[in-house]
Amino acid sequence: MNKELYNEIENYMKSCVKETAHDREHIYRVLGNCIKIAENETNVDYDILLAAALLHDIGRDGKKKNHNEIGAEMAEKFLKTIDFPQEKVVTVCDAIRTHNNESYGKQETIEAKILYDADKLDAVGIMGISRSLMGVGNYNHPMYVIKNGRIDTNEDCETDTFVRYYVRTLAKNYDRFFTETAKKIASEQKSVDESFYKALLNLVNENCARLDSIDNLFEKD
Amino acid sequence: MNKELYNEIENYMKSCVKETAHDREHIYRVLGNCIKIAENETNVDYDILLAAALLHDIGRDGKKKNHNEIGAEMAEKFLKTIDFPQEKVVTVCDAIRTHNNESYGKQETIEAKILYDADKLDAVGIMGISRSLMGVGNYNHPMYVIKNGRIDTNEDCETDTFVRYYVRTLAKNYDRFFTETAKKIASEQKSVDESFYKALLNLVNENCARLDSIDNLFEKD
Repeated sequence: MNKELYNEIENYMKSCVKETAHDREHIYRVLGNCIKIAENETNVDYDILLAAALLHDIGRDGKKKNHNEIGAEMAEKFLKTIDFPQEKVVTVCDAIRTHNNESYGKQETIEAKILYDADKLDAVGIMGISRSLMGVGNYNHPMYVIKNGRIDTNEDCETDTFVRYYVRTLAKNYDRFFTETAKKIASEQKSVDESFYKALLNLVNENCARLDSIDNLFEKD
Repeated sequence: MNKELYNEIENYMKSCVKETAHDREHIYRVLGNCIKIAENETNVDYDILLAAALLHDIGRDGKKKNHNEIGAEMAEKFLKTIDFPQEKVVTVCDAIRTHNNESYGKQETIEAKILYDADKLDAVGIMGISRSLMGVGNYNHPMYVIKNGRIDTNEDCETDTFVRYYVRTLAKNYDRFFTETAKKIASEQKSVDESFYKALLNLVNENCARLDSIDNLFEKD
């Protein structure tokens, strides 16, 4: 693609993308990750990769599920109206349709695999922690809940908390990369995640233990 | 105080406190910090300290300013209706009135200084990072904005971002503790804050640099 076509796709993305954890800066980080990963892959079609990266989250509105399906449909309609190589539209849309967690394993092209990895890289390490905390705040959910006097770290915790999201999703992102480049970057980020999470548990659980002994401060009747 | 009186004050707190970054768990962390700090101080009145810790954020509703003033007035009215030592109400309310950042230096009693330090300890290190990211998400603000191709780290950045909050407030919390205990705990947390912030800047600025060279991928006309 040339710069004019890129700008046309970018402007459409800007008109669609709003949600905090998946804002425009997320798109640009995923785009950058795509480029970084693609450098070490062969036979990458940059028309497909750049369009898919820019448009992968246009179907998000913070409420609807299946943002991947919705985004793929929106992208198909949009790309048909501009001077984009029409024979590549299907592959762009397939990449968008399979970029979400639930579609893991359905990626058939190198561009779809790169997009999946690039998006997932923005959900590990420092960005994984930061974005999920912002998301939890955005939905007005708590950081954690206390059960039996300690942080509830159960995957089946009834309340949607940062800690539940960590154990259910964040901690598992590391096992699901296709490319060697993404695996390497993710493994370098893993200790950031883990030490942050452990420090949080330690701090809160130590505090709970301290409050267990608050009875010692009360006057006895 | 005895346990019944403590429970009465705690229940009133629970009926008031909602906001995410200052939710009940924040109150319990501050309460725990108060107890930890008080262990190394002399002449601490625990009636005053526990009541002030439990009630310090009851004036917050996520919108109104001066939550310290509002909270102090609410606490005064409430404490007059229960079997709390009435001669201590003024000191509890003074501690609540001066627990916020802007009141730094106005704390006249050891209980007010301990509450200030305990509250501030929940705004440094891992809790400082986590709570401010949740707050930024809650207000639907972005993590950062890009200016001249890099993260805008200016204190006077026009957009209210996590990064602006870090440079304006979080990074400065370390210089404002009264007690040696709090100073020590905070200094142990400082590297968590700083390394998280630096890693975030590096990751994003490296990505920006990568996107600077996106032009190389375009076909020339």
